Amino acid sequence: MAKLRFQISMSLDGFVAGPNQSEENPLGEGGMRLHEWAFPLAAWRERHGLEGGEVNASSKVVEESVQNLGATIMGRNMFGGSGPWTDEPWEGWWGEEPPFHTPVFIVTHHERPPVTKRGGTSFTFVTDGIESALEQAHAAAGGKDVALGGGAIVAQEYLRAGLIDELQIHLVPVMLGDGARLFAGLGDTKIGLECVGSVAAPGVTHLTYRVS
Amino acid sequence: MAKLRFQISMSLDGFVAGPNQSEENPLGEGGMRLHEWAFPLAAWRERHGLEGGEVNASSKVVEESVQNLGATIMGRNMFGGSGPWTDEPWEGWWGEEPPFHTPVFIVTHHERPPVTKRGGTSFTFVTDGIESALEQAHAAAGGKDVALGGGAIVAQEYLRAGLIDELQIHLVPVMLGDGARLFAGLGDTKIGLECVGSVAAPGVTHLTYRVS
Repeated sequence: MAKLRFQISMSLDGFVAGPNQSEENPLGEGGMRLHEWAFPLAAWRERHGLEGGEVNASSKVVEESVQNLGATIMGRNMFGGSGPWTDEPWEGWWGEEPPFHTPVFIVTHHERPPVTKRGGTSFTFVTDGIESALEQAHAAAGGKDVALGGGAIVAQEYLRAGLIDELQIHLVPVMLGDGARLFAGLGDTKIGLECVGSVAAPGVTHLTYRVS
Repeated sequence: MAKLRFQISMSLDGFVAGPNQSEENPLGEGGMRLHEWAFPLAAWRERHGLEGGEVNASSKVVEESVQNLGATIMGRNMFGGSGPWTDEPWEGWWGEEPPFHTPVFIVTHHERPPVTKRGGTSFTFVTDGIESALEQAHAAAGGKDVALGGGAIVAQEYLRAGLIDELQIHLVPVMLGDGARLFAGLGDTKIGLECVGSVAAPGVTHLTYRVS
């Protein structure tokens, strides 16, 4: 059965973005350090339309993370913040050929028409909640899995609702000290997790959990 | 050179003890779940004077964690709380044959005479700070490494002071939601960490970091 798979980079002290996130700095102070393990990889660069790059123990993880994916869900902050595009049709951080290469469903409170980009990415704005977004994503995915892209807030909504099937944490050995916690606001949510994979790679450890 | 090695079990959401820690429940609500991976292991049971038990991917990690150790440091809460033994000579949680099998140095504000137990464990109470405790532990260890046992508060003191050489986190896929965070109160402390080992085992992933 098609799964909802969530992956995110997290600091050892539990943050997925640093403090003082803003339109200009959506990852917050120091937050870029969470993603530095990925940038040199050929597998990452190819996804972003770049040539070259290296192969290391992370490569297989990145390759697998985009296999059998038919759609993507993200929160509006990950799409591109809340500011500009309530007044004008701003199209997010992602440029003309975004790295998703699937239909993307954005959970937001602001209605707007869908946008089609190059390379197989489209953006559809879903204003009636996370379950509707998941339903639309599954329909668009045609039997393939759906990726939940983040950020923390929409991920917490899906965790609370028990809708995530697989959780992959790219655990980065840095301390951000403050910022957006991945695991916060979960209240009494009971989440059964089983670690089904662990890969140590330069600058990151990839931990894969099955959610039950 | 002899190292200070720190290991601790942590929930995926960053807690090393659950909420509402007390004399009666020093691990807090749900905190015992952080240690359940260890209890069935023959390697753990032997250390605690018990026979039998199983062998799995954690066994080697537990065996290595006690190799080449000559002394142990812990905070007073891990020794046995602050209540009883300020008025009477209470000897902590650890019984007549504690599982440390080395001299143990307890960082505390309360002076009291040392106690010798069976099986190679002694308890020495150090009231002049973490650096003194480390110095005494290294002297007692005779060139072997020193283990820092926790809990969170004394570990944070050593992290802030940059005195820990190796950090091993037994990452347990549970969410405690609240309690004692391992990585809190570190302020602007810069800690350089390199993951040098990752072992997935039943109910836990063992992550070993070199601190630079």
